[in-house]
This record gives sequence, structure tokens and C-alpha cells, in this order.
Amino acid sequence: MSQHAVSNQAWLLASRPEGEPVKENFRLVEQPVPEIKEGEMLLRTVWLSLDPYMRGRMDDGKSYAPPAELDQPMVGGTVCQVESSKHSDFKAGDWVLAQSGWQTYAVSDGEGVAKLGELAHPSWALGILGMPGFTAYMGLMDIGQPKKGETLVVAAATGPVGATVGQLGKLNGCRVVGVAGGEEKCRYAIEKLGFSACINHHSDDFADQLAAACPDGIDIYYENVGGKVFDAVFPLLNTAARVPVCGLVSGYSSRDLPSGPDRTPLIMAGILKRRIRMQGFIIFQDYGDRYPEFLKAMTPLVEQEKVHYREHVIEGLENAPQAFFDMLNGKNFGKTVVKVS
Amino acid sequence: MSQHAVSNQAWLLASRPEGEPVKENFRLVEQPVPEIKEGEMLLRTVWLSLDPYMRGRMDDGKSYAPPAELDQPMVGGTVCQVESSKHSDFKAGDWVLAQSGWQTYAVSDGEGVAKLGELAHPSWALGILGMPGFTAYMGLMDIGQPKKGETLVVAAATGPVGATVGQLGKLNGCRVVGVAGGEEKCRYAIEKLGFSACINHHSDDFADQLAAACPDGIDIYYENVGGKVFDAVFPLLNTAARVPVCGLVSGYSSRDLPSGPDRTPLIMAGILKRRIRMQGFIIFQDYGDRYPEFLKAMTPLVEQEKVHYREHVIEGLENAPQAFFDMLNGKNFGKTVVKVS
Repeated sequence: MSQHAVSNQAWLLASRPEGEPVKENFRLVEQPVPEIKEGEMLLRTVWLSLDPYMRGRMDDGKSYAPPAELDQPMVGGTVCQVESSKHSDFKAGDWVLAQSGWQTYAVSDGEGVAKLGELAHPSWALGILGMPGFTAYMGLMDIGQPKKGETLVVAAATGPVGATVGQLGKLNGCRVVGVAGGEEKCRYAIEKLGFSACINHHSDDFADQLAAACPDGIDIYYENVGGKVFDAVFPLLNTAARVPVCGLVSGYSSRDLPSGPDRTPLIMAGILKRRIRMQGFIIFQDYGDRYPEFLKAMTPLVEQEKVHYREHVIEGLENAPQAFFDMLNGKNFGKTVVKVS
Repeated sequence: MSQHAVSNQAWLLASRPEGEPVKENFRLVEQPVPEIKEGEMLLRTVWLSLDPYMRGRMDDGKSYAPPAELDQPMVGGTVCQVESSKHSDFKAGDWVLAQSGWQTYAVSDGEGVAKLGELAHPSWALGILGMPGFTAYMGLMDIGQPKKGETLVVAAATGPVGATVGQLGKLNGCRVVGVAGGEEKCRYAIEKLGFSACINHHSDDFADQLAAACPDGIDIYYENVGGKVFDAVFPLLNTAARVPVCGLVSGYSSRDLPSGPDRTPLIMAGILKRRIRMQGFIIFQDYGDRYPEFLKAMTPLVEQEKVHYREHVIEGLENAPQAFFDMLNGKNFGKTVVKVS
């Protein structure tokens, strides 16, 4: 049987968004899969991860990673099974973690592909035991440095990063206050994840509610949304507070700066007077060598259900763009993964 | 001879400034010095230190230190000689470092007073071997973490903190670019302090000149002025840059925020994408226990003239307010100290 029989469905990046991404930025194509050569293998995508950072990759600007290329399959982390292999390190049937993007098949020479062992939940390698979990762990533990009795605030509290940050903070003795979009998510954060409080950022009096939920101020703010949550948090930051800056999803699609006044001097004065540490990080660039440490610490926590993990599963690659838009707008509930095959 | 014969001159804080401080905020008084009791001593001020942080202490707002009190001698670090003593730890003639403020005499119970050993230059305990030098050292070494070949930018380059930061950076293998107000200061920074370049911030094309002087971007920005220097520096910060935030002298007297747009999202996005670490610190709160380490490292550098130190000496306590205004406006050249007696 020739591999030419295999047809690949792929979402190409058709154009770069102006502000919010739209359907027209993607184009679904069907193309034959090239035959694999010596040293290559054919990957069949089982799970595709959808993550906020992808919005930045759609732009052409200078960032920490090169932009996604036009007319190429949109970039993304995947869990695949090896369909056929002429690569000495991989054999048909192997489960692997890859960066093969928004498509059903991909030919790979093995670069950047990691074998997954026997996993009860292969898709978790895209979430709690993968990039989002690792991001939560290192940002909180290395920059946030949680101490017993401190108040930790985390937004997107039911997302894969936020939920993990909050639960790890709790395991480290912090009082955890979440911020989430909607009452159902807030209930989940309190009842299932064990947060002390969770504030709905859609509330009119959100800032007042947050202040009331943090009577002793905020010692750690794990920043992954920016915008109005940051604005409400900043005045509450305590002396010697730490702010790991992991993401700013609320601003990823903004093209214009908000109107004045320019609060830059206020932010700088706060950093100085309250001796705040604010630090951006990009997980694999800053902490790549500590991934084994993370896996060793996190795996038992998840297996023993000391840390809960929730997935938001979308069926079918054809639904990836809409699922991506929904995630950027907070309509997901848990880690968004697409079941491709 | 009774101590009642001693008359004390003191500058009291008469009112709090609205914006720039003015003469009317201070009031010179002459009052008798109370007789010392058992456990007390009389200090005669020899040197008074004038520092940017004092501007903040004149305000009533919440900050890292309580505000200076109205109708009390203005606060400030001093080098004094013990005039007479009923304190078991101090005897007449001892040189001490104190916080006795803008006055010629002060009665002290010894709290917060440190004996100075035999110093060739007692006033240096207010500068290179005191708070400013310590501030320069810890901010650069602990937060800045200089590495060979990196570019370090420091403003107020001929001030006591900036000059020390730059010279320490150079000793640690950095390429040092200073920012100062005026050609004479810039020449001094290059010729005497050994900086690779020094840009006059009064130049119309200051930002362009700074960019040209930093062809490989900026790895460490030691922030002690804020304002337009920060604005010119921020776009040049490299990936993984460090920004110790030590002071913001340009904004200390500002009452209003600049007009818009609000650049906060831009700053946050820069911190994220370029993985910048920005951290405020207040020297004695954050690093008080490391003062001996600093002294041990810095003393030989100064004695061997590997680090140069320049003082701006003002004669007479009566001139303290004007000297203070001049320092805030960058008219000093070196560490401002007032020779009181």
C-alpha cells in the first residue's frame, strides 16, 4: 500500500489578523502526504493543543519566537502516533509529542519530537504534564517563590496554567484567590480546586470584590491576562511582592494603546516603593533544562489527584479555528485540546 | 561648663511641597540644646548627606519609610563627632554615623548610631562606603547580575550611585554607557570613570544617541532616574535584561501623570516578550545584613583607586536647602555633602 493514498487535511495561515483573529485568517486544504524517505517517519495527529501564545505567532512582529509562516500549516503542539517509520529511533505505533501543527498528518525527521512513555492520558502531555503545567510550575516556584500564609492571586483560574498555579500555591501554604470569567468557573475554582475565593471579572464591581477578597494585600500575582485584572491587582500588591509575567492574553489582539494618562511613572514608582519584582519568562527558553525536575514533582501530584486537571475537548480538526477564537475569549473551560483522530 | 551654652541650628520641615520643593518648605531655627542625661550623648554634626530619597520623605503619602515630621529637623544621614557622652559605648571625640538630620547638634541615646573606625575621609561613610555605595553595589550585583561582554546603562552617571554602578560594571567586564546632564559630566564619566560612552540627556537627539551608543542593545539598566531616560532605554532592552529599580529622581516632584496614551500594556508586553526582570529595592530593608560583605568588597577598591569617588561639598548648614534643590535638578557634580562644622 503506497503512502500516496494518505491525504492530509491542514489549516494554513492564510493571512495575518488585524486585531482579533477571524476565520478568513485560516484556510483548510487537503493535500497528498509525501512518501517518507530514509530517516523520516509519518506522524498521525491524535491531539492538537490550542494555546494563547499562538495568537502572537500569527503576527509578523519581533517576538520571542519567529512568526508562523503564511500558507503553511498553523503551528501548534501535538500528540501523535507514528503511522510508519524509516527512522531508527521510532517505530510504528509509538506515541510522541511533536510540534506538527494544525494538520492530520506530518512527515518528520525526528527533530523536536519526544517519545512519550505509557501514558494513561496521552493528551495530558499537552497540558498539566506539558507546556502549560511546566509554565505554571516554574513561574510560581522560581519567580513567585510562594511562602506559607501569603496571598496568591491568579487569573484565568480554571485554565490549564491558572488552575495549576493556584493548586500548587495552595499546596505551598498560600491563600489562593482566583479570577475567572463567569460564575460557573468561579464555583469550580472554589469547590473543585480549593481556592479560598474566586472573583468573576465580568462583575461591575470586580476591583472592589478583589480588594475585599484580599484583606492582607497580594504577595504573588501570577500574571497571565493583563488588562483590567492587572489594573485591579497592582494597587493591592504588598511590599516585596512577586509578579511572574507569563502571559497577557487580554491584550494579544489589541492594536491600540488605551487612552491616557500614561501610568508608566505610577507603575515604576510602585515597583520602587513597594520593592516589587516583576519578571517575564518564556518557559522553554528560561527553564528548558528543568523539565525533568518538573515532571518528577508534578506527575505524582496529578496521579494522586492532589492537583486536578480539566480538559475542554473539541472533536475534529475542522473546528480548530472556532475553538481557538473561543479560547482567546475565555469561552473554554479547562485546557483546550482538539481530538483530531 | 554647662551644655546649656550650646545652641543648635536646625532646618525644620515647615510645610510639605506641592510639586517641586521650595525654600518656604524649610525654616531655620536656633534653639538651646537640652542637657544630656545618663545613657545619652551629644553629637556635633560634621557632615550632612543630601540624597534624592529625602524628597520622598517630605511627602505625606504611604511609602517605604514614614514621612518626615512637620516642625521637626529635616531627616538625613550625618557623620558626627561625639561632643560629650554619658553613654557607656561612646566617648567624646568618637566619630559616628548617625541619622541626626539637618542640624548642628543632636542628643542621642545611641540607637541607630554606628561607630566609624579610623577613616581617612569620614564623609565617605555617607557616600561610596555608605548608603549610596551600598545601593550601587547590591542593586548591580544581586539584581543586575553583570556578565562579561554585556552592555550596562546607568543614568546620573557622575552621581554617587551611578558612578559606582558604572565602575563596578566595568570591573565585572561590562561595556558601560552612562547618561548624564551636561558635557562636562559626560567627559568626566568617560575620561575619569572609564565608561565607554556617556550621553548628555539635554541633547535634542538623546534617544538616538543612546541607541547608537548601544549597538548590541542593553542587558542591564540600572534605573535611578526614570522619565525620558527610561523611555529611551526600554525599547533597547535585550532578551533577559535586568532592571534594578533604585530610584526615579526625575519623577519625585511630579504631581500629575503624563498625558496618554497609557503605555502600561506596552511595558508589560515588553517584560513578557523579552523576559525582562524589573525589581525595586530599598537598600537597608532588602540587604541590611549584607553591609559587611559590601564594605569588605568595596573598601579595597576605593583605597586602591580602582573605583573613583567625587564629592560635591557645600560649606555651611545654612546652604543646605539650596544645595538640596540643586541636587534634585542635577546641578551637583558628585555626591552632595554639607560641611556643617
